[in-house]
Amino acid sequence: MDIRNYMRDLGSRARAASAVVSAADTGQKNAALLAIGKHIQSSRSALLQANQQDLDNASNSGLDSAMLERLALGEARIDAMLEGLEQVAALADPVGEISGLRCMPSGIQVGKMRVPLGVIGIIYESRPNVTIDAASLCLKAGNAAILRGGSEAALSNAAIARAITAGLADAGLPAHAVQVVETTDRAAVGELITMPEYVDVIVPRGGKGLIERISRDASVTVIKHLDGNCHVYIDDDAEAQMAIDIAVNAKTQRFGTCNTAESLLLAQSRAAELLPAIAEQMHEHNVALRVCDKAEAVLAAANTACARQAATEDDWYAEYLGPILAVKVVSDLSAAIAHIGQYSSRHTETIVTNNHANAMRFLREVDSSSVMINASTRFADGFEYGLGAEIGISTDKIHVRGPVGLEGLTSQKFVVLGSGQLRS
Amino acid sequence: MDIRNYMRDLGSRARAASAVVSAADTGQKNAALLAIGKHIQSSRSALLQANQQDLDNASNSGLDSAMLERLALGEARIDAMLEGLEQVAALADPVGEISGLRCMPSGIQVGKMRVPLGVIGIIYESRPNVTIDAASLCLKAGNAAILRGGSEAALSNAAIARAITAGLADAGLPAHAVQVVETTDRAAVGELITMPEYVDVIVPRGGKGLIERISRDASVTVIKHLDGNCHVYIDDDAEAQMAIDIAVNAKTQRFGTCNTAESLLLAQSRAAELLPAIAEQMHEHNVALRVCDKAEAVLAAANTACARQAATEDDWYAEYLGPILAVKVVSDLSAAIAHIGQYSSRHTETIVTNNHANAMRFLREVDSSSVMINASTRFADGFEYGLGAEIGISTDKIHVRGPVGLEGLTSQKFVVLGSGQLRS
Repeated sequence: MDIRNYMRDLGSRARAASAVVSAADTGQKNAALLAIGKHIQSSRSALLQANQQDLDNASNSGLDSAMLERLALGEARIDAMLEGLEQVAALADPVGEISGLRCMPSGIQVGKMRVPLGVIGIIYESRPNVTIDAASLCLKAGNAAILRGGSEAALSNAAIARAITAGLADAGLPAHAVQVVETTDRAAVGELITMPEYVDVIVPRGGKGLIERISRDASVTVIKHLDGNCHVYIDDDAEAQMAIDIAVNAKTQRFGTCNTAESLLLAQSRAAELLPAIAEQMHEHNVALRVCDKAEAVLAAANTACARQAATEDDWYAEYLGPILAVKVVSDLSAAIAHIGQYSSRHTETIVTNNHANAMRFLREVDSSSVMINASTRFADGFEYGLGAEIGISTDKIHVRGPVGLEGLTSQKFVVLGSGQLRS
Repeated sequence: MDIRNYMRDLGSRARAASAVVSAADTGQKNAALLAIGKHIQSSRSALLQANQQDLDNASNSGLDSAMLERLALGEARIDAMLEGLEQVAALADPVGEISGLRCMPSGIQVGKMRVPLGVIGIIYESRPNVTIDAASLCLKAGNAAILRGGSEAALSNAAIARAITAGLADAGLPAHAVQVVETTDRAAVGELITMPEYVDVIVPRGGKGLIERISRDASVTVIKHLDGNCHVYIDDDAEAQMAIDIAVNAKTQRFGTCNTAESLLLAQSRAAELLPAIAEQMHEHNVALRVCDKAEAVLAAANTACARQAATEDDWYAEYLGPILAVKVVSDLSAAIAHIGQYSSRHTETIVTNNHANAMRFLREVDSSSVMINASTRFADGFEYGLGAEIGISTDKIHVRGPVGLEGLTSQKFVVLGSGQLRS
């Protein structure tokens, strides 16, 4: 099999299909989403069987239990896929929306119309449910999609692809509007990310290594974040209980997510009062600390039981994705903003304060994709932001930033409504 | 001189300055813009002298008259620079604007805040006035700028740079917020476009060759258009006089601009009636036609005097930037949309019609950066669109599309306002 030609054929068919999907009306796109759901439902047993085969193969080739857990579909995950399709169908269609239409001195009216991007390439690892999530968002935003899942999920993804193709056909949309790459050859990814004539945007979902490789080698825009070193800053004027609750929730509500707090900064004036209480709760959640000298002095004086060791420079950069928290006592808001500017991955940061000026300064000067006041970093999420769904999170500043929903999969063109105006 | 180190030093200083400029308030940025104007005004004679030296050198090295015309400053162009500075100072500041703040079921409020991009690199050819235009827009949008002008304008640009530096100092902003590359070594461009750690976006302004080279080699986002093959489509239901006027204005109001019409499409039902009259006026403007067989038949039957020859496939792609117009008779709106989809450079297209359904279909299905109804393509321009000023036009779909004003030099981050919300 010639991978280059195979991928270019996929690309060329996706480009052709995208012209049809971009002009499809909302009803037709929703009908396709619901029809895909029907076909998933009616092929439930075949889907579970294909997934079981993937699981058996993966288990035989020694994949670890975390990987197997991500690979497994099961009835509940299929239900979630069906629910997701219905939710995306229920979202407002972003395509065709005209905004900001204003009259100009020349008499023309100028505004912007939201339009699909074209063809989206999604590269992901084990989870086969991403196939449906990604396909449904791309489709609703009027784009064609090329999906490249993990090789370990090949049979599951092929089974899902059959349901997608059947649903598209039911709604009269081109089969190639959503294509699943059928080869497990790694060269396929290299081709997918270097054919700008066929693919407009790449969304990689997976480990940092995968995303770094793709960003480095892609010749089209990549919507991505590499890691989430999120900060909670407790300001001089923080409300004590709120500060403790937010720090604990941001760190412990889930350890493995990108919007989990990895670093806690405390204003010096509040460290002695608040840090021991926070450390106590971290201890109950089995979280170990990496502390600066000042934090250590406070904790030692309070005789806390919480496990800890001295922080190194690396700790300020770290995304632990586990029960570890870096803790630093800073002199004031300026020092907190400077620390975040230097070490953050620009994902999500929050300030706990009742001081209006400090809150607004933090909001304006912290240069991250989500900046919060008095809320847990765990809210940085497409569903929590009301986007309806999320295809990923971007920490870049170009095109789209923060959780990426339907709007992030579109662009805007200028529209001009005239009545015969000439330029003079 | 080690160009790589020189450029990286510029970049590192620009990055540091951008942190200050991004946090500067509107008053301070406007004060800097007006102070730059004062220094331009007070150094008028030095500026004209430097420009004269550039002109003498250019003339001695045999630059053609069009190049010399672009290089010349003169009193009127300096006045225009001063006026431009005042206009940009008068524009609303995009930075800090919060939009779409909505309450979520969790109790948090979520919105987006407009923020600077960071460091913008501008690469341009002869016109020294671009130095002021680009610097003022970057500064107002809270960005640092690195400007690389043409080597033939080196002395003029250095003189302008001195006024900029003095104006920044007057307003208490860092001198490195705007830096002019002082070496004329071409390697400097290669460095500028491949240091993503220091530069966030590149805006090239100049010939197609320059822009193609930069787009190919840049490792950061390039805001650009390569060419403007703009179309006027006269629909079945067009008003006759409006159709003639728009076709003539779009082609002849200026020949050398990117929003000038290069192709005219006519619905078959209107060709015999309208094409001879249009050809007559094109003839008066010394415009020669490249025509399809059907257009030739109509023109021959009408015995028109307008110079013409048979169009080749290349004509449908051509941006003539001169007194030539490609003309094609198409069967209907669908054929017009298909032709534009195949041959357009996706800059600007207009339909002349009184049919609402056709107008809306054209608006939606034509995938260009500006799509118009009943208006001349010549309106595709930042000033005409009410953006206040324009740093360039983008025909890409990522980040920004169409004329690029202040907003195109910014990004948006999510802001979350809470009152102690935790994720559960």
